[in-house]
Amino acid sequence: MSSYGGIDLGGTKIQAAVVDEDNTVIGSARRPTPTSGGPAVVAAEIEQALRDAAKAAEVEPAELAGVGVGSPGVIAEDGTVTSARNLPDWEGSFPLAATLSAALGTEVKVGNDVQVATDAEFKLGAGRLYSSLLGVFWGTGVGGGLILGGQPWTGRGGAGEIGHMVVEMGGARCTCGRRGCMEAYAGRAAMEGHVQRLVGKGSKTDLFKLMKEHGRARLTSGIWARALEHGDKLAQQVLDRAVVALGAGVASAVNLLDVEGVVIGGGLGIRLGHPYAARIEQAMQPHLFNDNRPPHVHVAALGDLGGAIGASLLLRPTA
Amino acid sequence: MSSYGGIDLGGTKIQAAVVDEDNTVIGSARRPTPTSGGPAVVAAEIEQALRDAAKAAEVEPAELAGVGVGSPGVIAEDGTVTSARNLPDWEGSFPLAATLSAALGTEVKVGNDVQVATDAEFKLGAGRLYSSLLGVFWGTGVGGGLILGGQPWTGRGGAGEIGHMVVEMGGARCTCGRRGCMEAYAGRAAMEGHVQRLVGKGSKTDLFKLMKEHGRARLTSGIWARALEHGDKLAQQVLDRAVVALGAGVASAVNLLDVEGVVIGGGLGIRLGHPYAARIEQAMQPHLFNDNRPPHVHVAALGDLGGAIGASLLLRPTA
Repeated sequence: MSSYGGIDLGGTKIQAAVVDEDNTVIGSARRPTPTSGGPAVVAAEIEQALRDAAKAAEVEPAELAGVGVGSPGVIAEDGTVTSARNLPDWEGSFPLAATLSAALGTEVKVGNDVQVATDAEFKLGAGRLYSSLLGVFWGTGVGGGLILGGQPWTGRGGAGEIGHMVVEMGGARCTCGRRGCMEAYAGRAAMEGHVQRLVGKGSKTDLFKLMKEHGRARLTSGIWARALEHGDKLAQQVLDRAVVALGAGVASAVNLLDVEGVVIGGGLGIRLGHPYAARIEQAMQPHLFNDNRPPHVHVAALGDLGGAIGASLLLRPTA
Repeated sequence: MSSYGGIDLGGTKIQAAVVDEDNTVIGSARRPTPTSGGPAVVAAEIEQALRDAAKAAEVEPAELAGVGVGSPGVIAEDGTVTSARNLPDWEGSFPLAATLSAALGTEVKVGNDVQVATDAEFKLGAGRLYSSLLGVFWGTGVGGGLILGGQPWTGRGGAGEIGHMVVEMGGARCTCGRRGCMEAYAGRAAMEGHVQRLVGKGSKTDLFKLMKEHGRARLTSGIWARALEHGDKLAQQVLDRAVVALGAGVASAVNLLDVEGVVIGGGLGIRLGHPYAARIEQAMQPHLFNDNRPPHVHVAALGDLGGAIGASLLLRPTA
């Protein structure tokens, strides 16, 4: 029986998984993404994460039928990755597939991180009942993946930038430098900046205290979840603002595309889970043009491993 | 040589065209849409418009290889039309294809008005160089049509509602009853309401004077164009506001879909032409995420006849 490797390359962590032919995870491993050293250092860490996952699955990397990588950045046909956002010193091009293939002794394919996660939910997860699907990955930023008529839609390679749909003309400054993007209200990076400004103006919150207590350098999804459990009013208020923006932005995408299903994933989407998916669904409703037939909204069923499982699908003949 | 009929059924006018096998228009006619009497009266007027166009083309209606109709509303496979917006007393269902087919003695097919106009621009007009296209029909409302991977994308039948993408959370009241839709700033109906409110607050404009002079009951595209020619400051200001909203909304759609081309049609889009298409393109730029590779923006090349020509394509074997 063949097995396959999958890597989800994120700005914070590298998630590796080894799956069997039925897409059951038989081994997984996680490593922090290096914060310096450039693409070669990141590639070495990916190799180690994959070796850890293969060890857990009791398979030699060279025995894998192949390894898929879901990566940020601009991805060429040959697996070269250029301008990978949130990754250290990765502005130029790096032959990621060739480097990993040489190191691991098996075929390596690279795909867009958000799109492979959407494909995984479409084929194996919360979207498997639908032929059209919008994946909304709510984390540091807000990424989007599309399945239309059973096929991924990537445009000229740059589709899915749902986080940069404009929900407020002249509105909040986004981390991308523009104004009024959905991500400027709902992205974790933008939310952290917003909290800092509110604290600078005298607002009170335990968010940064919790961050230090848990040894984090940023307000991670887990810190946001804990703050909610503690009844932190500022955290609640900033998340409420994010949900309102997600409602407007996701509804706008649905008005344009009329997809059957919406899957909410990403660090925050998965950590906050069903209650927040339901709140986003509710926030969409007043903006839906065909409001008698809203799309079905789900939390990503494959959870944190969805990106790595989706990457492993890149090696399948039909993928 | 076969010829085909096409009808563009709008809230203001019924445009009919007869085309030959090369899609050259060999006859056309236009009639005002009845403002009362319900679907049967509208169908009788469509029949007359088609007869007028056939006469101009020197063809008998029964000799046509078929007639296509681009209609608003919800359109069933068999050509029944339900809830046709902007048409008189057309809330229920009416067998439009069957009625016209019996009256004209030829096959009749009905499609969505915005989608057939987009198909026409894709196959014969400004979009023919692209495999992915967004049609933006800027008129009474703002409609959208999509071609993705060379095929129309209609979702579950309700896609393309670009006018109801949210560009301003909690913003201007839209004619659909919601808030902050692009159409609330850019649709001709909403713009007329906005001008009325500004005049009520003491603003000066010649728009309504021009409307009366030209015997119109509404601020038509022609009245807006004339007011611009007269240097009407309020008209300019309200159109500027529309362009800003169109820039944000169309850029949002492009960020999501990364289409190659955008075609601006509709009454206002065609009447205001290239200078305004260029202004919309400019207003999109600050919101485009992939701003080094904007889509090409064009005015609809088939002009006022695009809808009728597109409808005639419904009868083609490959359409």
